[in-house]
Amino acid sequence: MRIKLTLQYIGTHYSGWQVQPNGVTIQEILQKALSQILQEKITVVGSGRTDAGVHALAQVAHFDTIKDLSLFKICRGLNAILPKDISVLGAESVPRDFHAQLSAKSKTYAYQIWNHAIRNSFLQEYSWHMPYPLDIGRMQKAARYLVGEHDFKSFCAANSTAKTTVRRIKKIQIVPGPLIHFSITGSGFLKHMVRNIVGTLVEVGQKKRTPSDIKKILKSHDRRKAGRTAPAKGLFLVKVIYS
Amino acid sequence: MRIKLTLQYIGTHYSGWQVQPNGVTIQEILQKALSQILQEKITVVGSGRTDAGVHALAQVAHFDTIKDLSLFKICRGLNAILPKDISVLGAESVPRDFHAQLSAKSKTYAYQIWNHAIRNSFLQEYSWHMPYPLDIGRMQKAARYLVGEHDFKSFCAANSTAKTTVRRIKKIQIVPGPLIHFSITGSGFLKHMVRNIVGTLVEVGQKKRTPSDIKKILKSHDRRKAGRTAPAKGLFLVKVIYS
Repeated sequence: MRIKLTLQYIGTHYSGWQVQPNGVTIQEILQKALSQILQEKITVVGSGRTDAGVHALAQVAHFDTIKDLSLFKICRGLNAILPKDISVLGAESVPRDFHAQLSAKSKTYAYQIWNHAIRNSFLQEYSWHMPYPLDIGRMQKAARYLVGEHDFKSFCAANSTAKTTVRRIKKIQIVPGPLIHFSITGSGFLKHMVRNIVGTLVEVGQKKRTPSDIKKILKSHDRRKAGRTAPAKGLFLVKVIYS
Repeated sequence: MRIKLTLQYIGTHYSGWQVQPNGVTIQEILQKALSQILQEKITVVGSGRTDAGVHALAQVAHFDTIKDLSLFKICRGLNAILPKDISVLGAESVPRDFHAQLSAKSKTYAYQIWNHAIRNSFLQEYSWHMPYPLDIGRMQKAARYLVGEHDFKSFCAANSTAKTTVRRIKKIQIVPGPLIHFSITGSGFLKHMVRNIVGTLVEVGQKKRTPSDIKKILKSHDRRKAGRTAPAKGLFLVKVIYS
């Protein structure tokens, strides 16, 4: 039986999603908890990796089991075992050809910037604190150049192993306020892509770059032409959409 | 010179506001930081105590200093020294007769209940998780009996040292949703008063009590007649109002 899980987590205390030798990861904790509940070795496949410190409101993952435990008991069992900063929101039975990563049609990420002279204790771990004024109109204008299908090599981490760097961004929204809220939906995202986009848009907002510089950066296919990588703690995986 | 500070803090890792022998408190950390910046022994007076685990969006405190450091430098210095879960939002010079506690005309507290079958990792430290259905209409009806001037002895912690238990509640709002939001404004609050009110209203929402039971509880002047004390982590000191 293949089961699809929807998960929420605070990334602060984890070395990201994917199992790795150094540091505790979400995938590892989830696999251990499931193996304990189902009494068999479980491997979990996520919709994609999230970096160390990145949060998820609804990450999706799947796993296979030969046991016949009810979905309700799996959920309840997981939430009893998992640390409080990881929660299972739901479990459903899916066809064998469902794949958390390969079946995903699009994803939505959010990014938060606390744009105020004084820091905010409550948003400390959930936003990037930017005390300087930002011109949101310029950032919105710049963001329009990113919408559509493009080669996003300039916005991709240098050590990415992706076969192609072409991706399609469907929508970018930037809502102004002391808490600036970015929402980005796309067919898929390269390593650090959202954080590099936000970091570059912030430089446009600071008037260090013009909105149309984005066009040149995309064309250059050169990571060094884009801006800095925004901190992980402001990033949230909001939704994974399947057909 | 007397200075008024406005402070924000996450109460999770502290033993409340007031200095005490066991456990680290906000007042203690603030006094140490101010004494370091001003190079003199500083005593800070808060608008009132907050219990261990209670948060503050805008706590107010005052202190006296003989040093002539600018308000801007005091703020910047404090935010550089203070842990990230305590932030100074502002400092202003006030007349000698201003007193953070005695001059306060009213206070607003908020309380959050996460009313959903599944826990919420992001609200874990900022709400009371109540997985059972609550009848908000009943709770709102019950709350109306609390508005006005009453003897709140039944809602006051047994070990309180308050001279009188008469207080005036100006307004109670309960906004429904998966995240139920309480807002309570009053002339002043007794020890555990807001948490005991919320705990009792929840029992009305669960239909363990009727709205008009509140009248009887008030009349009884007996703490044992009211409901349980809601957990500290859902409570926020929102605002202190001065004339």
